[in-house]
Amino acid sequence: MTTELQGTSLIGQQSVTGKGDPIHAINPADGKPLAPDYPGLGRAEVQQATTLAWEAFDRYRETSLEARASFLERIAEEIEAIGDQLTERGVAETGLPAARLEGERGRTCGQLRLFASVVRAGEWLDVRIDPAMPDRQPMPRVDLRQRHIALGPVAVFGASNFPLAFSVAGGDTASALAAGCPVVVKAHSAHPGTSELVGRAIQRAVSACQLPEGTFSLLFGAGREVGQALVADPNIKAVGFTGSRAGGTALMATAQARPEPIPVYAEMSSINPVYLMPEALAARGEAIAEGFVGSLNMGAGQFCTNPGLVIGVAGGALDAFIAAAGEAVKASAGQTMLTPGIHDAYTQGIAGLAESAREIARGQSSDGPNQCQTSLFAAIARDFLGSEALQAEVFGSASLVIECADLNEMAAVTEKLEGQLTATLQMEDGDNDAVRSLLPALERRAGRILVNGWPTGVEVCHAMVHGGPYPATSDSRTTSVGTAAIHRFLRPVCYQNLPEALLPEALKDDNPLKVSRLMDGKREA
Amino acid sequence: MTTELQGTSLIGQQSVTGKGDPIHAINPADGKPLAPDYPGLGRAEVQQATTLAWEAFDRYRETSLEARASFLERIAEEIEAIGDQLTERGVAETGLPAARLEGERGRTCGQLRLFASVVRAGEWLDVRIDPAMPDRQPMPRVDLRQRHIALGPVAVFGASNFPLAFSVAGGDTASALAAGCPVVVKAHSAHPGTSELVGRAIQRAVSACQLPEGTFSLLFGAGREVGQALVADPNIKAVGFTGSRAGGTALMATAQARPEPIPVYAEMSSINPVYLMPEALAARGEAIAEGFVGSLNMGAGQFCTNPGLVIGVAGGALDAFIAAAGEAVKASAGQTMLTPGIHDAYTQGIAGLAESAREIARGQSSDGPNQCQTSLFAAIARDFLGSEALQAEVFGSASLVIECADLNEMAAVTEKLEGQLTATLQMEDGDNDAVRSLLPALERRAGRILVNGWPTGVEVCHAMVHGGPYPATSDSRTTSVGTAAIHRFLRPVCYQNLPEALLPEALKDDNPLKVSRLMDGKREA
Repeated sequence: MTTELQGTSLIGQQSVTGKGDPIHAINPADGKPLAPDYPGLGRAEVQQATTLAWEAFDRYRETSLEARASFLERIAEEIEAIGDQLTERGVAETGLPAARLEGERGRTCGQLRLFASVVRAGEWLDVRIDPAMPDRQPMPRVDLRQRHIALGPVAVFGASNFPLAFSVAGGDTASALAAGCPVVVKAHSAHPGTSELVGRAIQRAVSACQLPEGTFSLLFGAGREVGQALVADPNIKAVGFTGSRAGGTALMATAQARPEPIPVYAEMSSINPVYLMPEALAARGEAIAEGFVGSLNMGAGQFCTNPGLVIGVAGGALDAFIAAAGEAVKASAGQTMLTPGIHDAYTQGIAGLAESAREIARGQSSDGPNQCQTSLFAAIARDFLGSEALQAEVFGSASLVIECADLNEMAAVTEKLEGQLTATLQMEDGDNDAVRSLLPALERRAGRILVNGWPTGVEVCHAMVHGGPYPATSDSRTTSVGTAAIHRFLRPVCYQNLPEALLPEALKDDNPLKVSRLMDGKREA
Repeated sequence: MTTELQGTSLIGQQSVTGKGDPIHAINPADGKPLAPDYPGLGRAEVQQATTLAWEAFDRYRETSLEARASFLERIAEEIEAIGDQLTERGVAETGLPAARLEGERGRTCGQLRLFASVVRAGEWLDVRIDPAMPDRQPMPRVDLRQRHIALGPVAVFGASNFPLAFSVAGGDTASALAAGCPVVVKAHSAHPGTSELVGRAIQRAVSACQLPEGTFSLLFGAGREVGQALVADPNIKAVGFTGSRAGGTALMATAQARPEPIPVYAEMSSINPVYLMPEALAARGEAIAEGFVGSLNMGAGQFCTNPGLVIGVAGGALDAFIAAAGEAVKASAGQTMLTPGIHDAYTQGIAGLAESAREIARGQSSDGPNQCQTSLFAAIARDFLGSEALQAEVFGSASLVIECADLNEMAAVTEKLEGQLTATLQMEDGDNDAVRSLLPALERRAGRILVNGWPTGVEVCHAMVHGGPYPATSDSRTTSVGTAAIHRFLRPVCYQNLPEALLPEALKDDNPLKVSRLMDGKREA
């Protein structure tokens, strides 16, 4: 079955053709435009979508756990039912290999199903019951019960680098829908056809599950106008975003300037330091170099967790690592980047690094458009400590090795780092003491600390943290990957002395939802 | 034992005398100044305190659960050991009755001990373990473990209206210390002596528990300079504030303008609507009127949860309620307000209400300074719907009755309301259907919904929510009263494949802290 792309936005169950400037995808592998055009919406249509979302909110947030979980599972089924067309269109729009897109579809649908299980388990309700104590002295205690409810309609911004897993039906959408929030997605302009296919799958799931149509809308727009209007809209109560620091901070400013400020969960920039601890470097520097360049080259380096900084103590072992990494970089084939804009930014970024750092190696160059040539640089720690430029994220397969005089200077470099999504330690048992003294600084700076792996794999599970202090994200108290992401879209409400007949199901005495509860401060699993 | 007040700030274990403009308390009951003067600090001393806090942070946040809990308990003991001096000074500085201050001391110390029990139970760590699955297809799963750690040093602003429970050792301080955050308090200028006494008690507890001295500091300053410098300081990572909307939004703006924005938990303004449902009004309107005026007059109305708005359906029963409430208001004695500034604002506030609403009754007037004369007004719903002024919080014993044509207009008034800390329903079983249709709007607008009680009692327990949508607070996702308040000062960190020797105690396989864990998605209580 192939769906003909319509080039329209989806407002509830309607297909709506905007009157603004159109966007269209460009195949980055050959630079050619892809039909159809997607005319941009105006403020009136944004308002139409948010009004529908607001109208859907009270009913959608009180759907039963089972109904909401089934809806998430139905979305996964509808996405799978699109079949090969999704992969083909995705490849054409992003230049990513088919296998990567198929894997990403699996991840996207797995994520939806994981959130279905989270909805059913009901831990997110954080039920707390403090029963009345009528005889307490000097004052009786009233009956108090707490649950969490959805914040309201959420604006989600699709990311360019994960056209499925961080886009229309990605982690932000899945966790917001799981929390009970209607979602209005602003499609990323780089993959509109992929977005439309997934958007129509969600639209079908909404209809099949007989949910209010405003539960989901998908908007197209050139430039920033639609996105800014969405974040400024009074019916929107939270924002999920993955993208650039400039884009994220612009949304934060808009959200804060509203008469009613709202939370923005922006996952923005990170250079993901990798620490080469002395014993590990001595024992297996070359193998580490190989693993490092493999991680650096994944997806042409277009990952939020790409290892953009490597930190080691200067000496023969670090020299050998640099030499081996340089050889691996030279052998790296060119890869097509996602968009001409990303390619241009990459070219500028490595030009900037070349000004302040020593070039170690460049990868192979290719003739086609938008090719990423892997790039490796090095600098001494003193130069890094004195430079803001060397800490800027270069999105793509570029990395910088920092040579420290000793472990103390490694600590000084660490304290200079901005907030990060990840920090990676390559270490052996003999490095334990050195790592132990480094860990507090890493905990203060990163959402995830990993040992003897590479940051580019992000497992979707319960314990994952894909987050971190600013500017890695706008809000370090959360994660955008993993089941804890649902908490971003919830707030607590307390009910005092409500008659049993009026209590939400989650709070009734006999626990009909069978959820874990904190009863008078004691956990009932 | 009486401690002679020194009139100094406390920076770690030091007493520091500022060189800035001094503040001193005024006894609101007689308008006379109270010795000593408290000279204000400058930016250098603010930085000294935050630097000490930062230096204390890594060690304090990794204190054992038992050590941290014992510290909180020790603070409670030290506060109790101050004895009558605390009550006497509190009465002189606030005009509140001695019994109220003694009750508030009990609440403050009870709160510290409750947080000690929360620390020991360790649920706040939110431990999640997803064990490695080396044989999983197509990709093995790594070992992933999550815990929460403290955000960093927290700036706490004491509130005027709870000189103990929301001040130096109040809920913000207790929950931040429980989370593992050092605390720097900006003392409220209205009760500096009370602040110093409590601050010295905390200082003694820090010393007795052998904690790093930067764990706690207490700063005095006239005007906003010290507070703004504190919030702008790079070593401060979160802010707790209870006070006016103007004060809270100013801190929000400063926190957002930092190179690294930080969360602000500001509890600001709420008029706490009370709904008189028809059956309840018919059955017991006069008793409700009596309860209402009792709540209105508590503490001269100087509570965040004071019932400033009453909503009913026009008719004979509402008229009778208004008449009975008016009589009770007329019989209300004058009460001393906390400060001349609060009294002036109250006088202006009721003058504003008098312009737009119908005066029902005024309470008795008194001769002394800073006396609150209880005031009751009424207006029809149509006027309320067209006026922003009628929705402004008047801090003190003033309230406004809104007369609705019917339940539909009651719903329209509800949808017009800003975010609230509480919404109260006076109802009978026969009102169930009407309440059921009102509840979704109340959930969207308030942190706590209560039935047949009054909002002015706020229990410190696990299920309490003292929070709500903007402008009741700056962040609806949290509460500032109750054990869930600890979550405001925490963020998740994920550890991937960390060797057992390096894992934090909370995440070790054999669960040495005996905390509830989410193991592979299953709750282990």
